Parts: sequence; C-alpha cells; structure tokens
Amino acid sequence: MFFASDNGSGVPAAVLDALGRANAGFASGYGAEPQMAALRETMRGLFEAPEAAVYLVATGTAANALAIASHCPPWGAVYCHALAHIEEDECGAPEFYTGGAKLVPLPGDHGKIDPQTLENKLIQAERVGVHNVQKGMLSLTNLTETGTRYSPAEIAALSAIAKAHGLPVHLDGARFANALVAEGCTPAEMTWRAGVDVLSFGGTKNGLLGVEAVVIFDPAKAWEFELRRKRGGHLFSKHRFLSAQMAAYLEGDLWLDLARHTNAMAARLEEGLRALPGVSLLHPRHGNMLFVSLPQPLHDAAQAAGAVYYHQRLAGPEPAVSARLVASWSTREADVDALLASLAAGLAPGGGAALSPA
Amino acid sequence: MFFASDNGSGVPAAVLDALGRANAGFASGYGAEPQMAALRETMRGLFEAPEAAVYLVATGTAANALAIASHCPPWGAVYCHALAHIEEDECGAPEFYTGGAKLVPLPGDHGKIDPQTLENKLIQAERVGVHNVQKGMLSLTNLTETGTRYSPAEIAALSAIAKAHGLPVHLDGARFANALVAEGCTPAEMTWRAGVDVLSFGGTKNGLLGVEAVVIFDPAKAWEFELRRKRGGHLFSKHRFLSAQMAAYLEGDLWLDLARHTNAMAARLEEGLRALPGVSLLHPRHGNMLFVSLPQPLHDAAQAAGAVYYHQRLAGPEPAVSARLVASWSTREADVDALLASLAAGLAPGGGAALSPA
Amino acid sequence: MFFASDNGSGVPAAVLDALGRANAGFASGYGAEPQMAALRETMRGLFEAPEAAVYLVATGTAANALAIASHCPPWGAVYCHALAHIEEDECGAPEFYTGGAKLVPLPGDHGKIDPQTLENKLIQAERVGVHNVQKGMLSLTNLTETGTRYSPAEIAALSAIAKAHGLPVHLDGARFANALVAEGCTPAEMTWRAGVDVLSFGGTKNGLLGVEAVVIFDPAKAWEFELRRKRGGHLFSKHRFLSAQMAAYLEGDLWLDLARHTNAMAARLEEGLRALPGVSLLHPRHGNMLFVSLPQPLHDAAQAAGAVYYHQRLAGPEPAVSARLVASWSTREADVDALLASLAAGLAPGGGAALSPA
Amino acid sequence: MFFASDNGSGVPAAVLDALGRANAGFASGYGAEPQMAALRETMRGLFEAPEAAVYLVATGTAANALAIASHCPPWGAVYCHALAHIEEDECGAPEFYTGGAKLVPLPGDHGKIDPQTLENKLIQAERVGVHNVQKGMLSLTNLTETGTRYSPAEIAALSAIAKAHGLPVHLDGARFANALVAEGCTPAEMTWRAGVDVLSFGGTKNGLLGVEAVVIFDPAKAWEFELRRKRGGHLFSKHRFLSAQMAAYLEGDLWLDLARHTNAMAARLEEGLRALPGVSLLHPRHGNMLFVSLPQPLHDAAQAAGAVYYHQRLAGPEPAVSARLVASWSTREADVDALLASLAAGLAPGGGAALSPA
Repeated sequence: MFFASDNGSGVPAAVLDALGRANAGFASGYGAEPQMAALRETMRGLFEAPEAAVYLVATGTAANALAIASHCPPWGAVYCHALAHIEEDECGAPEFYTGGAKLVPLPGDHGKIDPQTLENKLIQAERVGVHNVQKGMLSLTNLTETGTRYSPAEIAALSAIAKAHGLPVHLDGARFANALVAEGCTPAEMTWRAGVDVLSFGGTKNGLLGVEAVVIFDPAKAWEFELRRKRGGHLFSKHRFLSAQMAAYLEGDLWLDLARHTNAMAARLEEGLRALPGVSLLHPRHGNMLFVSLPQPLHDAAQAAGAVYYHQRLAGPEPAVSARLVASWSTREADVDALLASLAAGLAPGGGAALSPA
Repeated sequence: MFFASDNGSGVPAAVLDALGRANAGFASGYGAEPQMAALRETMRGLFEAPEAAVYLVATGTAANALAIASHCPPWGAVYCHALAHIEEDECGAPEFYTGGAKLVPLPGDHGKIDPQTLENKLIQAERVGVHNVQKGMLSLTNLTETGTRYSPAEIAALSAIAKAHGLPVHLDGARFANALVAEGCTPAEMTWRAGVDVLSFGGTKNGLLGVEAVVIFDPAKAWEFELRRKRGGHLFSKHRFLSAQMAAYLEGDLWLDLARHTNAMAARLEEGLRALPGVSLLHPRHGNMLFVSLPQPLHDAAQAAGAVYYHQRLAGPEPAVSARLVASWSTREADVDALLASLAAGLAPGGGAALSPA
Repeated sequence: MFFASDNGSGVPAAVLDALGRANAGFASGYGAEPQMAALRETMRGLFEAPEAAVYLVATGTAANALAIASHCPPWGAVYCHALAHIEEDECGAPEFYTGGAKLVPLPGDHGKIDPQTLENKLIQAERVGVHNVQKGMLSLTNLTETGTRYSPAEIAALSAIAKAHGLPVHLDGARFANALVAEGCTPAEMTWRAGVDVLSFGGTKNGLLGVEAVVIFDPAKAWEFELRRKRGGHLFSKHRFLSAQMAAYLEGDLWLDLARHTNAMAARLEEGLRALPGVSLLHPRHGNMLFVSLPQPLHDAAQAAGAVYYHQRLAGPEPAVSARLVASWSTREADVDALLASLAAGLAPGGGAALSPA
Repeated sequence: MFFASDNGSGVPAAVLDALGRANAGFASGYGAEPQMAALRETMRGLFEAPEAAVYLVATGTAANALAIASHCPPWGAVYCHALAHIEEDECGAPEFYTGGAKLVPLPGDHGKIDPQTLENKLIQAERVGVHNVQKGMLSLTNLTETGTRYSPAEIAALSAIAKAHGLPVHLDGARFANALVAEGCTPAEMTWRAGVDVLSFGGTKNGLLGVEAVVIFDPAKAWEFELRRKRGGHLFSKHRFLSAQMAAYLEGDLWLDLARHTNAMAARLEEGLRALPGVSLLHPRHGNMLFVSLPQPLHDAAQAAGAVYYHQRLAGPEPAVSARLVASWSTREADVDALLASLAAGLAPGGGAALSPA
C-alpha cells in the first residue's frame, strides 16, 4: 500500500530489457550513440516538431533548471504557481542554474495559474525599470502539484498572455503522460501548438529508472542548453543507457499505456474514497494524484495497516488529515482496494467515522 | 577494437542483475532506500572511515564539481594539474558550482604535480591580499589524465604541503580502481591516510551504467554537500538504482577484479606496442591508459582496420600521431591482439614502418 | 518642490569641505588610509561595539547584498517584508551576490513584519528537508519602505524569533538616522542590543554623495565580507574620499542633526496635509516619508505647480492618487509650505476638493 | 616621494569644483540627471561614436567585470595576458560577474599578448566540443600591467584575430589616457576603429575621486549592461556626482593634460634612472609606469629616505630588487628629483653601487 509518490515504483520489464540490449559492445558516449539519433527522430515525430532539439537528463530538477536557465536571464522573473515544484521542491535549483533569477509565485485555485492574475502581474512588471527584476519567463506544470490538469486551451490562454508580453513558456511535464492521456490530446497540442517553448518531458515517475527529456522547440537555444547541461554535470558518458530507456518507454506507446493504467488506478481510488463517509476531495482529481481530507480514525486505521502516503494535520472541528495519494504504473487494483479497506476499517460500526466522543 | 575510452564499454552482467533485483516493489527514494544505508556502511568499512559521508551521483563531473564546491569558497583558487579533467574537460563545471572559483593549472611531468611547484605557488599566494583570489583547495587526479599514477606517498607529500598551508585536498578518482590495484594499497592508504579530504570515487569507467560516489572524510561538510547536490539536480528519486549498482560493484571485490583485468589488458597492449618498430610511449603506463607515438603507416593501417582511439598529428621529422589507447573492463585479449595486428599491418615488409620515401 | 526621494538632495557643505581636506597629498588606498582607521574607531565607539568590523561602500544595494551574502548561503531563504527594498528594488542583487538565495517575502501591515507570521514561516521551514531552500536569514528595514518604524523592542522581538531558529539578522538602515532620531535611542539599542548581526548604515540619503557603511557585529564574518566586497568591485582605490565623507557625517553629530531636520520637515508636511480636506495618510508617518491619498484636484494642482513626487492612481469612488512624499536634509520649511499651498490650490472654493460633478 | 600607484594621488581642483557646482539643488538620480545626458553626448563626440552607450561606475574592477559579463557567457573563455588586472588583481570579479567564465592567461613579452599565441589558442579552442569552455572574449589592457603600450595597429591586429574567430574585444583602459597621449592618436583610433567593442575608460588613476566610464560601441548590449550594473550594486542614486566628475575631467581636455604631465614625469624619472649605475629597465617605459632593477644599496637608500613604491627581491648574483615606480598627475618634478637623489645616495663614492664585499 505505497501511495507516497509515483517515484516509489520501479520500472517495467521492458525498460530493464532495453538496458540489457543496449549493454552489448562498445559505443560512443555523450549522446553520440546511435540510439540517441534514433530517439531524437522518434521524439520529433511524436511531437510533430522536426526541428526540435531533444536532450536527456536524469532528474526532473535538472530538466527544469536547465530548461529555465536556457530561456531566462539572471535578472529575469520566472512566473510560476506558488506551489510549483520549481518554487517549492528544488532547493533553489532554478536560482542556481540561472545565476540568480527570481521565482515569482502566483496564487491560483487548485494549483493552476489564473490568466487574469498573470496578465496583471505582467502589466505591473512592465511599469518598472532598471531597479527591478525584469519579466523573464512563464513556467507551467501539468499535471499540477495538486494533481489537477491544464487543458491545451488553458495552456494556450496562458501562453498567449506570456507571448503578448514577450515571454517564453516552459512546461514542467514531470507527469506529462498522465495529463496527456487524461486529456486525450496529442503531445503537440499540449505543447508547442499551445505556445510552449520548452518542455520537461518526464519519464522517471511513469516508469523509467531516471530519465527525463528536455524538448526545445526553438532549436536556436540548443547549443546553449548543451553547454549548460555539460557544465551542470548532467551529460552522461554512457548515454546509451538513457537513450535506451527512453526509447523503450516510447516504443509501442508503452508510456501512454502506463499512464492510462496509473490514472485508472487513481480513478478507482477516487471512486472508493467518495464512498467513504467523511472523506472529501481537496482538489479535483485530473490524473493520478488525489488530495483528500481523511477523518482521523480512517487515517489511523490505514496507517496501522501499513499504508504509506504524505499527510498533515488539518485544522477544523473534527480531527482530520489532508493526505496525498499517488498511484503509479505499478499500482494494482489490489493495492487500491487494500488501501480503501484499511481506511474503511476506521469507520465506526454505524458506518460513520469513529469519532472521539467530544 | 574500441580503445577510445573506458566509458565506451557497457556493464558486467552482475550490475544489470542488481538493477533487476532492486526493481522489485516500492521503495522510498532520494537515498532513503535500505540499499543506500547498507552501501554507506560497506563503503565506510572499505575505507576504514566509520564517520565518512558517502553520496552517489551519476557523472564524474557532478562528483568533482560538488566535491570542490563543498570545500572551496567562490574566491578560492583550486590548484590542479594543467591537464586535469576539472580544468580541461568539464566546461567550467567547477567554476559554476563554486560560484566562480579560479582553477590554477600547475605544470608537471606526465600529468603529475611537482611538490616544489605547489609549494612555491602557495607561498606566492600567501603574499597577496584582498585583491587576489585566495588559496582554496588542492585537487589531484589518480590515475592522472596522462595515465600515470600517484603513489600514496606522493599523494601524502602533496597533501602535506596543502595542509601546511591550510588547504583541503580533493582526489578525482575517476580511475581510482585502476590506480589502486596497480599500487596494491588499500583505499584508506590512497585517500584519508594520505591526507585526502574528499574523494570522487569513480564507478562508471570501471563498469557501472553511471554512478560515482563522493566520499567526504570530514562529515561536517556532509549537509552542505547534500544541499548542493539537490540544488544541482543530482539527487535521484529512484535512488535505489544507483545504490544497487554501486553495491554490486563492490560485492565480492568485483570492482577490483574489473580493474585488474583492465590494467592487464593495457599491460598486454604495452608489451605488444613496445615490440613494434617506431612506436614509443609518451608517458609511462601506470594503469589502463597508454599514450604512444605511432608512425603514420601503423596508424593508417589500424584506422583502416577500424580501430577507434583518440589521436592527433605529432610534429616531427617523420609523419606520426600521438594516440591515446584506453583499455576497459570489457576489453578482451583478442581485442588487444587485433589492435596490435592492425598496427603491425602498417609495417614495411622489412619490419620497419613503411615510411614515405622522403 | 522636490519630494520624490531623499536621494534627490545634494550634500551639506561640511561634506564637501571634508573631501577638500582629504584631497591633500598622497595616501594609501583601499581602506588603508589613516582616515579609515580613525573612522573605524569612531563607529565602534558610536555603536559601543569595540570588536565590530566596519566597511564602506558607495550604494545601498551594495551594502545590503554584500551584508546578506556574507551571512546567508546560496541555499538559504532570506525572510523580508514583501515591500522590502531588497525584494522589490535591487534587480535581484541579493540573489546575485548570494549565488541564488531565495527571498521569501512576508506580509505585514504598514511595511512591518508581524512576529507571528515570521514564527509560523520558520516553523514551517523546519519541517522541510533537502528538497527545499533552508531557513537562512532575517532582513529588516528601518525606516521601512512605507515610512514606518520598528522600535528597538520590535526589532528585538523579531530577532529573538530569528535567533531561536538559528538565523542571523540584517538591518537595512538606508534611513537608519531618521529612525534613530525619531526613536530617541542609541545606535546600539537599535542594532546589536536588539539582536542585529549586520547593519547597512545609510549615509547617502541623509547627506552624503554616496557612502554607506556596513557594520558587522560578529567580526568572524569580516574577512569574507572584504573578499566579497573586492570581488563585487566595491573596494575603492581612493578610499579616503569615502572615509572622509563618513567622518564628516558623524563629526559633531551632523548626521543626527540632518535627520532631525528632515523628520521635522516631514512632520510639518504631515500637519499641513492633515488640515487639507480629503487628504488622508495611508501609513503612519514615523520619520521622513509620507504616503498619502490625495484627491485628484489637489494632485493636479500640485503637479501643475511643479511638485515632484511618486504617485499612482488609486481605485475608489472619487478620483485620487496615492503619493509618496519624502523630505530630505535639504528640504526647507518654505519647500514644505509651497507644496502645501500648491495642493490647497486644488481645493474648491467651499473648502473641499473640487470634485467632478458626477 | 610616493610612487606606489597613480591611485595614491588626490584630484585636481577642477574636479572638486565640479562637485561643488553639481551639489546645488535637487536632481533626479540614477543617471537621469541632466549632466549625464550632456556627458553622454560629449563622450560620443569624443569617440566619434554617436550610437555608443556610455555608463559610469566607481571602480575599475566594476567597469571591467560588468563589461566582460555583458559580452561573454558563463561558459566562455576570456583570453587575457597572464599579468592582466582581471586575472591577477580583481579577486575573481570577472568570474563572479560572468557566472563562472574561465580566464585564460596568455604569455607574452612585456605584458603584451603575441598575436600568434592568440591565434594558436583560438585554433585550439575550436577543436573542442561541449566538454570544454568555449572561446568567449578577448580582453586587452592599455597601458599594460608592465607599463607598456599597444599601438592602435597592434590592437587592430589582435582584434582582427579575435573577430575572425567570432570574439568580441574588451579594452581595460584604466590608464587609457596615458596610452593615448603617448601614442598621439584619437580615442576612436585606439578603440572601435581598432576593433574594440567595449572599453573601460579609466578616470580614477588620472585624477578623479572614483569614476570610470564603460563605453559600449554596440548599443545592443546596453540594456543588459544596465541591469547587470544595478544588480551589481553599481548604479548610484546621486549619480550627478559621478557625471559631474567625468564632465570636468573631459572639459578643456583636462584629462589629456593630466596624462601628458604624468607621462612627462615618468620620462624624467626614466632619464634619471638610466643615468644611475647598475639600474636597468625591466620593461620599456611607454607611459607613466617604470619597472626597474635597483641595486640593493640604492633601494635601501631610497627606502631610508622615505620613498614609497612596490618592490620585491630579484634573484641574481648581486642583491637587487625589482621596483614598480608610477608617476601620477600630482607628481611634481621635485618629487622625481627627490626620488632620484635618494637612490643616488646609495651609490658608492666611486659612482657604482655600494655592493657588499662578497
């Protein structure tokens, strides 16, 4: 019953097999291996972007920080949601890689930036002069940190504002696959057709050992990215082990199948949770992440049964916790059902939560 | 006949098997997996350093840059050999990670820093004041970039100078195993007993997919290193795939066996090369790397036969190239012999190189 | 009628005279001139801090950024008010000088940080781990950006929270003199006795050509500061022209006299503004800065008469602007009265503002 | 007898007078004062560069570091002479401002870069790839650190090589005036006509309190420079005190008169030194700096008489020191003659140096 994060899972057999195949013989490194040339073409095809530059790194933080640093100067403001991973969970990697850019957190319901808020912020930013950080870049996340989703139209609306003010747009797609299959659109529709200039294309959370692609739709930025990647220590000598993973991930739409399964497990979990008295969703579920309010007795029961997830106490009249429940590609129906059962065990005999007498 | 680099090889089956075993089930990430706790103890035992901090990253450049940045301030001078990887081949990663420290390249025969040169440089550095970069750190490489080796006594001599001037010492051990087995000493003798404060312990070149350890003998630096690693994008979520590799590498002294084989292949190659008329060694061979002068006809013949190695034209009366020939753990005797045969094919019927008439 | 900023004024004759005297003959530079040694002792006496390190730079941004960078690591969070100069008006200088620290803006009425808000933020910061920016430093501003003042007790309360969480405290004292004379306390009471570790001691706004002191109460940080200053290009060769200015500023309490006059002019202005129908203060006036709501007709009249001050449109039922009015050491009573008269000229004959019919 | 540096002098009366005049009344700051607009046009006229961007900072290190950072990326190599101020005397300011660029010191007689050396270095730099720092910029110094001079033709030759390889060219003109009057050419001939893209135009050493201009011949770099300047803490609020100084410096060719006098004093000193037995020049004198070998007795005599200059022991059969003797605008003939007399006092009765018996 591991629902702490989708990065707690391993990888499908196909990925390990691909490593085994890539292992044969000697090969040039640093991306000069034949697998990378093939993968580059595969990804250009997938994104309908024949000119796109495609690079691999091993962590999402590296992908984001390098993508941002290649598109935003040291004196730029990076507009992002207040809960964005780059703002909250990367220990200042974007600031480090950009040479001190300023992340400007924007509020917004359910982890999504409101277009009017962005517009207002940019208008305000254009009133300032040399004393102030300059408007630099927009960074979106899809799925968001609260598990919600931007549609291509929503991304396009935000990008249009950014573009009207001269800003490039980054998309942190650590859970790109989960968003994509939920939306049922194409990769191009979710990205460059919606105004995205550079994408962190997540692989690790959805079934790789540790590979993320950065897709740069404006190839003029490519060489700078390569130098920043090397300089950041993110250029792999035995690069074939990255390209082989990513190739296996895309082969036969494995990545989409994994994401569909993952989202389905989350949907099953949502359905079960909704049936539990006292449980409520804190954010809409749009992919594979659930944020729920759990009555304390249910939470206690699940913990006692060994369920693993992030949680924190909620303020309110009744003891409760907010819990983040994340399904992964390796989550099985039985795992979901076990979690639900463990929570249900905390219900009082009458069907409600076993609340404290007071 | 691939002798371009030891990073052109794949990995032994034991390493892939370890990945497969690590793949089972869910696990906490970011180094909190049980494998890492075990590995930490293994490495502390190996280095006879029960307090050492042990971290994993995926590239040598990351290991070096993070190790240096954790021990040298932005205004520090990092003394290193003029041919050092950190000076020549990391696209400024040490400068980036330190926030602008200055690498001070020192001359020295065969890639090794001469103690007197270091001493003089440090005396000179102590004459300066606030206008100048301050003495910051000593960084050694073993094996060196020219394939030579520092003995523990030589490291100790250089460290003693550094320590007398208050400097910490870094050892870039991208080919640590090759140096160690050639020397026949213990890891402790090669490192902290010889004054090394922080080690980049290479794994990739000697048989891993992409894992290097950083061993910090002064644990007071550990937390800073952890933050710098995260901030640099080098903290892996599915960290078990790093710790599993490194554990397999150390298990049953696999790493030493691999390095012994590698060095033996280089020795075999050296023996064969010495028997070829006109071929001479440019640096002593102390491990798995050979730098040789090849008469042009021999080089041409090897190239025609498909041999792969780095080379460049040498100035001199007769056409010749300098070639770097690197054996790896997967180099077989047959590979060595094939290379030698391909070179020998360039010899003139009489036994000398088929030189141009002029 | 220049009320745009206190940096729009020149300098008193005594300061120019001091430059003339300092000009004689040859002198060592870079702070080694005799004037600096004397000034250092003067400032240590003034602050009752015989061990304090005292340095001069030429801009407030340099003082702040260097002070912060010497006390906060690249991965640190600098807690400051959302309106702080370091957050809003220095184009990312703190981020640049620290190597990418993150400024964390805190809300608070009238430009002042609420102790409970700080406490909550620090408690929250201690729940996080390696993925997050670490608590780094507290930076206060006195006078604040809205012209209000922290008392020594208020500073001490905030510092106590910071100290309880292990944080050093910076005080941006660009208008330190204005705060000090308004408070009627000693420099020590406003700084180290209240927990301040490093002070940006403003001189420029209160009568110098361009000199700010940085007073570091923990001399262990001094050498790092000196290197950062040099490296930032802020170490002056003809340093005597800085030390002479600052010495003249402190001589005979000139700085306090200037600030008292300045505050008195602001008080006179406040009194006059309060008598104008429709004018209201947006923040309490605690020193030499006023933030007021001006009915549009009054504003228009003042503008027509040539008054200079920052202003922006206010939302509301009646047309109005918010205006920032800053007195300086060279503001005379006649300037204040002229501004008041120019505003009054916008009043309708009946005594109220000449409002539009609608 | 102060010959330690030209920054040991004060400023001419005309400069102080200009400060007094600039002091009157209120003024906008940050370069928006009317004096700056006028100065900008003056300097554009002086340089025959109507599009040039002109900025003022207060130190030479700031001018150089900002100029370089605006023209060279973090991964760039800055080619400079091994003795260049940016390499030796700025505590890593260029590395800090660029975000970690690498200074590549080039050898060359008498402080001047040899064109062939530069050409070879650039050819070599073009052989490398992503693993290496990229060719970034050429930085020259005129006068050089050894007091020698590049002619416009020599600058043009080096610039042509740089330009052929795509590099911009910086000229550190801390002693630009001394070079210019010695050469007898125009500012344009010494700079943009010879291929210089950005100039640090020194004022401090030649008679200002602390002002250097940066002249950017490609205005496309101007805005970036402005942001870097602000972010570096080098934008002055009471900027009129910088522009007034520089205007006074240029008014009526004061700067050229000052430099001519300075060079004449150095020439007088050279003449006198050449007449002293045992004294020899270590570098040709091309401006206001002399590097000489002084027999120990002469040096001792001068020191005993209170002469101030930098010196260090020379290796050789007879005890001797190398001395740097710098004339400034305020050096008088009497100062020169006094120094010469003090040295001559060390001569043995017979006319040679009073050597030790051994």
